[in-house]
Amino acid sequence: MYSLLKELFPICRSITGDGVRESLGIIGRRIPLRVTEVPSGTRCFDWTVPDEWNISSASITDSKGRKTVDFADNNLHVVNYSEPFSGTLEREELMPHLHSIPSQPDVIPYVTTYYKRRWGFCLRHKDLLKLKKGKYKVEIKSSLKPGSLTFADAVIPGRTKKEIVISSYLCHPSLANDSISGVVVATHLYKYLKARKDNYYSYRFIFVPETIGAIAYLKMHKEHFLKNVYAGLVLTCLGDSGPFNYKKTRQGDHSLDRICANVLKHSGHPYSLREFWLPGSDERQYSSPGFNIPVGSLMRSVYGEFKEYHTSDDDLNFVKEKHLEETLQMYKSVIDAVESDFHYINLNPFCELHLSKYGLGSNPFKQEDPNRYFRKILTLLNFSDGKHSLCEIADKLDVPVLELAEFAKTLEQKKLMRRS
Amino acid sequence: MYSLLKELFPICRSITGDGVRESLGIIGRRIPLRVTEVPSGTRCFDWTVPDEWNISSASITDSKGRKTVDFADNNLHVVNYSEPFSGTLEREELMPHLHSIPSQPDVIPYVTTYYKRRWGFCLRHKDLLKLKKGKYKVEIKSSLKPGSLTFADAVIPGRTKKEIVISSYLCHPSLANDSISGVVVATHLYKYLKARKDNYYSYRFIFVPETIGAIAYLKMHKEHFLKNVYAGLVLTCLGDSGPFNYKKTRQGDHSLDRICANVLKHSGHPYSLREFWLPGSDERQYSSPGFNIPVGSLMRSVYGEFKEYHTSDDDLNFVKEKHLEETLQMYKSVIDAVESDFHYINLNPFCELHLSKYGLGSNPFKQEDPNRYFRKILTLLNFSDGKHSLCEIADKLDVPVLELAEFAKTLEQKKLMRRS
Amino acid sequence: MYSLLKELFPICRSITGDGVRESLGIIGRRIPLRVTEVPSGTRCFDWTVPDEWNISSASITDSKGRKTVDFADNNLHVVNYSEPFSGTLEREELMPHLHSIPSQPDVIPYVTTYYKRRWGFCLRHKDLLKLKKGKYKVEIKSSLKPGSLTFADAVIPGRTKKEIVISSYLCHPSLANDSISGVVVATHLYKYLKARKDNYYSYRFIFVPETIGAIAYLKMHKEHFLKNVYAGLVLTCLGDSGPFNYKKTRQGDHSLDRICANVLKHSGHPYSLREFWLPGSDERQYSSPGFNIPVGSLMRSVYGEFKEYHTSDDDLNFVKEKHLEETLQMYKSVIDAVESDFHYINLNPFCELHLSKYGLGSNPFKQEDPNRYFRKILTLLNFSDGKHSLCEIADKLDVPVLELAEFAKTLEQKKLMRRS
Repeated sequence: MYSLLKELFPICRSITGDGVRESLGIIGRRIPLRVTEVPSGTRCFDWTVPDEWNISSASITDSKGRKTVDFADNNLHVVNYSEPFSGTLEREELMPHLHSIPSQPDVIPYVTTYYKRRWGFCLRHKDLLKLKKGKYKVEIKSSLKPGSLTFADAVIPGRTKKEIVISSYLCHPSLANDSISGVVVATHLYKYLKARKDNYYSYRFIFVPETIGAIAYLKMHKEHFLKNVYAGLVLTCLGDSGPFNYKKTRQGDHSLDRICANVLKHSGHPYSLREFWLPGSDERQYSSPGFNIPVGSLMRSVYGEFKEYHTSDDDLNFVKEKHLEETLQMYKSVIDAVESDFHYINLNPFCELHLSKYGLGSNPFKQEDPNRYFRKILTLLNFSDGKHSLCEIADKLDVPVLELAEFAKTLEQKKLMRRS
Repeated sequence: MYSLLKELFPICRSITGDGVRESLGIIGRRIPLRVTEVPSGTRCFDWTVPDEWNISSASITDSKGRKTVDFADNNLHVVNYSEPFSGTLEREELMPHLHSIPSQPDVIPYVTTYYKRRWGFCLRHKDLLKLKKGKYKVEIKSSLKPGSLTFADAVIPGRTKKEIVISSYLCHPSLANDSISGVVVATHLYKYLKARKDNYYSYRFIFVPETIGAIAYLKMHKEHFLKNVYAGLVLTCLGDSGPFNYKKTRQGDHSLDRICANVLKHSGHPYSLREFWLPGSDERQYSSPGFNIPVGSLMRSVYGEFKEYHTSDDDLNFVKEKHLEETLQMYKSVIDAVESDFHYINLNPFCELHLSKYGLGSNPFKQEDPNRYFRKILTLLNFSDGKHSLCEIADKLDVPVLELAEFAKTLEQKKLMRRS
Repeated sequence: MYSLLKELFPICRSITGDGVRESLGIIGRRIPLRVTEVPSGTRCFDWTVPDEWNISSASITDSKGRKTVDFADNNLHVVNYSEPFSGTLEREELMPHLHSIPSQPDVIPYVTTYYKRRWGFCLRHKDLLKLKKGKYKVEIKSSLKPGSLTFADAVIPGRTKKEIVISSYLCHPSLANDSISGVVVATHLYKYLKARKDNYYSYRFIFVPETIGAIAYLKMHKEHFLKNVYAGLVLTCLGDSGPFNYKKTRQGDHSLDRICANVLKHSGHPYSLREFWLPGSDERQYSSPGFNIPVGSLMRSVYGEFKEYHTSDDDLNFVKEKHLEETLQMYKSVIDAVESDFHYINLNPFCELHLSKYGLGSNPFKQEDPNRYFRKILTLLNFSDGKHSLCEIADKLDVPVLELAEFAKTLEQKKLMRRS
């Protein structure tokens, strides 16, 4: 995953423009993507797709001809969506266009201006302090004109039309954990699900610019979402060393919330469960009251809460392959659990099974304490009355839902239970 | 408020009689009251209005002609509803008619005998101990004969016929916190509500003798209560220095309970929430199973729990203007919150609003942390789906409901939300 | 109760055979039992009644003619349901047939082999270690052939056909607390209920071999259980000195659960409440999803959790009359509470009662704090709206349900309340 991250990292993305297209091209060489262009000016609910933004270079040159700030060094140096500009300014005239973080003098901040025409530069506060009185030549070679917004998706059909959405966003330029780590894990999760046999749910992978991209996507697929989408996950901030954080769905008690809590609890990793909050990422759109789709977000450190967030320190050193792998593994477990969380019906509901008749008199699975084994299999059979999901029964037992899923599979194969 | 309290304090009130009429006259000079007389003998559900009681004087005179106990000094000296009596008794014969509190030797207790014909005096225990052997002349000039019970009410119509009852009682003689403080705050709350524009609810202010007065009131307005009364508050014990105590409604989870909890939590004052209990004050009648009206009681110190309760120490020194003002302020906040606690509908339910289009891109209200602002406005819009009350959304955010009400009003004015 | 326990203790019982019959004969001399025989081979849901097992003697004799292990000393010495065997074996051949507990070298374990034909002996581990190399003569005079399974029941009809099941099991041989203590308490509870006047519920006492006996019973009474059985209790482990443990019903919030919690809380005895779990005893069958009958189990120490469990230390010294009496008393309280837990209707629902009219102006029951008295009687009247059970009201008041039942009875007699 780290190699994909490295490939995507340097590109200057925004909510529109060639950076997004190039990034989708890179992902599209790994998994089959359907790319869609939405023309500037397209009305999407309360929003309108803005003009397309592209940039080739931007710099501030001092009176001695030295490039004080150069987009070529780091694409965070230019305020994202800056309008083109060329001119010479006194330091005092330049100042209102410069952004830095006094309390973090060594980092370049990430600033955008999608819906307000202006231009600006971002720089380390320590460099800003070095700017002497005098004239500065400013050159921003960007374009802001009608074009389109680009997004992509990929669907893996399952046995049912009920869909789970896996959504990540790729509008951020050179930021590794926020945005790109989600895209990278999503790409690999796609491969896992594609290879996984006999998926019950269909899976819809969505790669969009955040907010306006998700809004445009929902506008184009409104009826589909209202009819078929069962739940979703937003992937972001997945590659740092922080503990796991699961942000619950708007509903707060959806089976997805229960599953993520079960998987995290039994994972051995430190984690927290958090109630749904706003703002956030694209769950804001999926879970708006008109759509009301249960969408959770399983993260490592939470956006806005780590000091590298939206600065040049959210770079390739901040994200580690090891953490991406752990996170991918957690997502695979969540998916496996979602795919096992059925409401089963015990086909011999009157009195208990004579387990030994079915080779179930002692644990057929693996070396395990017999008391624990009987507790699990009898509890599973007892509560498989069509009213309790597998995960609810696992939670009664305080065992991993995936451990109980093995039992359920065996009982299903022996025609002792069926899915309701 | 304290001047009204001082005016009402000296009057000898009871559940019937001229003391109540005089008190209602004083209140009636401040707010328009409708006074009702209910004749003695009137059947009110399981109760019967008793004979009317009035008293002009009462005293115990010792053999040397000294007035040992005199009603003229303090109207608590006579057992309320004492029958007339005149005679000379030995100390031992007198004793069963005397009431004092051995553990509080410096206070006169408050004792009543509404439904059992007897007579008695209340005195400081230290004075009781001074009574020497000998004869005592007892004179009680009271009357107990058919008359009527007096109560009053005042209604402020709102946009809906749904009513909120503001109930206080005025049967207690010279006790300042218990009973009169409630009457005083109710009187000023009436003025506030009368001046308040565009009330949604109608407000019914009720001034009754406790228990039998409330029962008589309910008997006469039974159909109205069953049809129109939405909720209520009983006002008493509002002027001491104690922390706030909110006694929940019988339902325990009514929107009034949620609102009072929200207002108290964010008030900065110490407070407790208590489950509904019996006995109590007139909520016993309003919340009897046949009426089942949700009635809470927002107090300072709780009746029966402060040592001045039902003694001569519950006097004009015990109650302070400052505390009455704080309490009135709290009631105003509760009323404002009740008047803002609607279920709103976001009129753009698909995806989020493009806030900056409406001048809402940054907090239009007051200088505030932008993160906090966005959290609030987006949460309000997201959960305004007709299923969540404003106070429920405020509680999700852990912010004062009145703070969120400002946002709701702005969104309503901009036609972005409507009340459901 | 201890004399019945002593009489039952020495008998070698199993899931079938004469031990059960003899035991039921002893109980049948105290209470009227209907005994049923279910032939071997009878299909009962997923199970089949096995061949009947009887045993007359069993021993291991060493080469010097000494009886090393003898069934005559303790019926736990033979693996219950051992097939007949006669032969001479080397120590190494004998070893796989011997069962002991290395960590508890002084006790004989209890082992069964109901559904797998084999034979074996159980002995103290310290005795097993003494077995020297050499030949051992083994003789098991048992029979395993078609016969029948025996169980018994007794029904006490109440005013309604709704039944409460009191179930105990008697398949264990000489084990005093596990199994027999339950049978003994059940027998005495029968006498209590028979003598109790005017029972609302009917009571069905069931004495069965555990598991297969309960399954056979349910098979024969399936329609009756589905139609009439309201709730039940399984009685076992009732005579040791441990604190009380109430295992909740499968439902977890049944009125029986509330009642047991209330009775235990106010009993003054230490106790724990536990969620339903599997395995367990015959609640597994009654509460299987097809029957779904709420069955709790009120125990002292829980099976499997005390070190004497399923060993020769669970003997007549482990169980004390005093503990059996305490437990019986607790069961009587539970039954009395179940029989009082109605939903009452206050017949004067509008405003409160004028208590003194009915001689209820002061506590008519016993010397009690008047505040406590008024709190109880007014709360009972207020919440007697047909929606709250007596036990729910008692829990609001945090008082024993049986204490409130006295009040309810008085109010019912005075025609102030009726059962809904």
